[in-house]
Amino acid sequence: MQPGACRPVNYRYDSGMNHHAIITSLTKMLGENAVLTQPQDQQPYVTPWRGAIAGKALAIVFPTSTEQVAGTVALCAQHHIPLVPQGGNTGLAGGSVPDTSGTEIVLSLSRMKRIREIDTTNHTAIVEAGCILASLHDALVPHDRIFPMHIASEGSAMIGGIIATNAGGNNVLRYGTTRELVLGLEVVLPDGKIWHGLKKLRKDNTGYDLKQLFMGAEGTLGIITAACLKLFHTHRQTETAFIGLPSAEAALALLTKLRQASGDRVHAFEYISDTALTLVTTHIPGHPHPLGEIYPCYLLIELATAQPGDDLRSLLESTLADAMAEGLVLNAAIAESTSQARQFWSLREHISEAERQIGKGIHFDISVPVSAVPAFLTHADAVIAHAIPEATIVAFGHMGDGNIHYNLSLPKTITPEAFAETKNTAAKVIYPLLKTHHGSISAEHGIGTLRRSDLAAFKPALDLQLMRKIKQAIDPENQMNPGRVITTD
Amino acid sequence: MQPGACRPVNYRYDSGMNHHAIITSLTKMLGENAVLTQPQDQQPYVTPWRGAIAGKALAIVFPTSTEQVAGTVALCAQHHIPLVPQGGNTGLAGGSVPDTSGTEIVLSLSRMKRIREIDTTNHTAIVEAGCILASLHDALVPHDRIFPMHIASEGSAMIGGIIATNAGGNNVLRYGTTRELVLGLEVVLPDGKIWHGLKKLRKDNTGYDLKQLFMGAEGTLGIITAACLKLFHTHRQTETAFIGLPSAEAALALLTKLRQASGDRVHAFEYISDTALTLVTTHIPGHPHPLGEIYPCYLLIELATAQPGDDLRSLLESTLADAMAEGLVLNAAIAESTSQARQFWSLREHISEAERQIGKGIHFDISVPVSAVPAFLTHADAVIAHAIPEATIVAFGHMGDGNIHYNLSLPKTITPEAFAETKNTAAKVIYPLLKTHHGSISAEHGIGTLRRSDLAAFKPALDLQLMRKIKQAIDPENQMNPGRVITTD
Repeated sequence: MQPGACRPVNYRYDSGMNHHAIITSLTKMLGENAVLTQPQDQQPYVTPWRGAIAGKALAIVFPTSTEQVAGTVALCAQHHIPLVPQGGNTGLAGGSVPDTSGTEIVLSLSRMKRIREIDTTNHTAIVEAGCILASLHDALVPHDRIFPMHIASEGSAMIGGIIATNAGGNNVLRYGTTRELVLGLEVVLPDGKIWHGLKKLRKDNTGYDLKQLFMGAEGTLGIITAACLKLFHTHRQTETAFIGLPSAEAALALLTKLRQASGDRVHAFEYISDTALTLVTTHIPGHPHPLGEIYPCYLLIELATAQPGDDLRSLLESTLADAMAEGLVLNAAIAESTSQARQFWSLREHISEAERQIGKGIHFDISVPVSAVPAFLTHADAVIAHAIPEATIVAFGHMGDGNIHYNLSLPKTITPEAFAETKNTAAKVIYPLLKTHHGSISAEHGIGTLRRSDLAAFKPALDLQLMRKIKQAIDPENQMNPGRVITTD
Repeated sequence: MQPGACRPVNYRYDSGMNHHAIITSLTKMLGENAVLTQPQDQQPYVTPWRGAIAGKALAIVFPTSTEQVAGTVALCAQHHIPLVPQGGNTGLAGGSVPDTSGTEIVLSLSRMKRIREIDTTNHTAIVEAGCILASLHDALVPHDRIFPMHIASEGSAMIGGIIATNAGGNNVLRYGTTRELVLGLEVVLPDGKIWHGLKKLRKDNTGYDLKQLFMGAEGTLGIITAACLKLFHTHRQTETAFIGLPSAEAALALLTKLRQASGDRVHAFEYISDTALTLVTTHIPGHPHPLGEIYPCYLLIELATAQPGDDLRSLLESTLADAMAEGLVLNAAIAESTSQARQFWSLREHISEAERQIGKGIHFDISVPVSAVPAFLTHADAVIAHAIPEATIVAFGHMGDGNIHYNLSLPKTITPEAFAETKNTAAKVIYPLLKTHHGSISAEHGIGTLRRSDLAAFKPALDLQLMRKIKQAIDPENQMNPGRVITTD
């Protein structure tokens, strides 16, 4: 889909709007260094992290307070200028960059990055939307608290975008998605009004839980300016292991075993196919095979607890020993040090880079019920082997929550036309499998622009209808990220 | 608020509707024994659990399948007959009984009680809306899984109502409210269409998370017919303790200490004022003081883990010993057996009955941030001592999640007029405190009819506006529980 074609045909441009006058008003409101209009300055803000075409903005603006965000939104609403909220611009669905029309304003939250409050007794932090996730992690260290959300892009990703896309990451099986880690929000609505929902409460049954609207809405219903986040205690014990197994079914059986034996302290549970691991050990220097021998598949797992002591290690050792006796586990290495644990994680984190080295990738970020992961992998491998035999299947991911990155690597020599056709073929065979297994076509990355036609094809009509009703109720003028996620026609 | 006055003045009655014809159609659709019209048969279904006036229904209907629910709703939508969805009718806000007009139909989910599926590997159960919570608990035992939601009314409360009211209970500090325990929903919409959102996925970022609309909406946006619930492993170790402390501040400090020392395995954390405990030991036979001595306040706490072993007890003993050395704890008794643990819980569970014995109660189900509980208690005690010196303050509740039941007991001799006036006075002094502490006027029990004017007075106008937009988008004809939670005018 071409970004330029995002907006519905009946989109109402303000025929009286004077771009120059708008820029002047915004500059007066926000300050000269808070409004970028020159193409050379705009480049980092109009170019997506991956996958979509770079756009062109009327301006990139950098408010530094909620009131400034509100003022900007109100002005744009008055002149029907569509807004693209942007955090770290690390989104993987083309939802945080402008289209090519040059009529959209990118509203960057990057200069609103204060941590407004840390309440260790309440186990909460109030954080502005532009706070980088890694910065939040660092800020919590002296308070002996953690915000248990870890994603690959955390060095750049910002809280507002993380909430707007309901980011997942490695620890969902333990702590849930972002939605379950948010107690309150402050949101600027499409007309510029500020919705003050920044509560620190764990229980509040006073009408509809309005914050739920904005989480995962990918900026299409309002702009998140701050959030109250749930915190947990710092982990005192962490045990990391790299495990070789005979099958995905065995991996799944080990998950249940570990959850029970550890009292649900499984913190990460990452599946890595042999193909995926071999790509890394072959193409990424300094990454030898962690077990010395090849196995049909692997797990990278982590247990963690805030409880001081050393019981977690012996618990892991005895559980793995039992699993080995049952034939679920063929080999395992428990990290002896933090650096060895890092080494294990580095293998997992370099899969994408290794993929890029060997070919052009078609990426499926899917989820199925955890119990259906082995069956899905088997079926998917079979249909791909039949439909696209030249593809190298690179499967890995968050097996503990049912989310697998099921990627196909095509030879680098493939032509753009052949690649596009192969991409269509792949979707045509994979999506029906997802329907069969009652899965999702986008577990983590959202819809943005890149998956909008997929959504329209995959999601039942009634769901799309309900989404449109919500959009029309909250953003009737289609101000916010128009054309992303859903269209209103 | 009189139930008869719920509906907005412009509510559109179908002037052509023939009640007799509607009943005939419903009887044909659902069967004769599924439609109750006689007042003597209706009594249990039109009388609320507590607090509101009994109503009068056009009929009580008992569909046994989602299709029957859909057919009923469609028929009622066609003839503009308002519907009151009902589960176990244990709601405490008057939201599950009809008004006195005799024009509303109560749609009981009580005969849709199947557990459709238990998937132990996925850690989920798919359960129909009429399944009683205690029945679900029992059904999970042979599967070695738990649904960690416990409320006083669980012997009667049904899953649909529990989700519609976002029930809380004792274990929110560990597992979250009901909302965090639901992965998917099946809902009949106000026009009779069935929304198939019954997913078993932990990650699914494909557009707006529509199930969030219906949870906590108290039946005003659609009728929940089934849900996919998150399960956890059965607890292998549970330790219960009754503790005497010098102050609420000390209790709060103990919470943080216990959360960390146990690796966040605090399962329940109930605050009991000395007045509350004394009421029970004095008025409920067979409930001696658990510690033998009076203390300023008490905690009933529970740690639990699925991990086998016996480390939890020694952990609790050493943490309490440390706390005692620090002066946070004055005395503690750890239950030596399940029956002693039950005895401790019985003290907590009989507070309401003891209250009823000594006087007429004014009940506040409030929440504040956990860190603000001691300050709220101090302020509230002070303002009540000044404004209503004759009241006995009975404070107890889920301190671990910030939810306190702050009740006032007035002498039984109080006249109805004086009682009503005292109730107003109490609200006038308590609600401003809640605003000061950024709290909630209804932590668990919801709004229904009983708190609708409180909501309108307490909630910001913008929140009410947004709620009305949602209501108007999803239920434009005001079919579903009209006048409950919010009005549309």
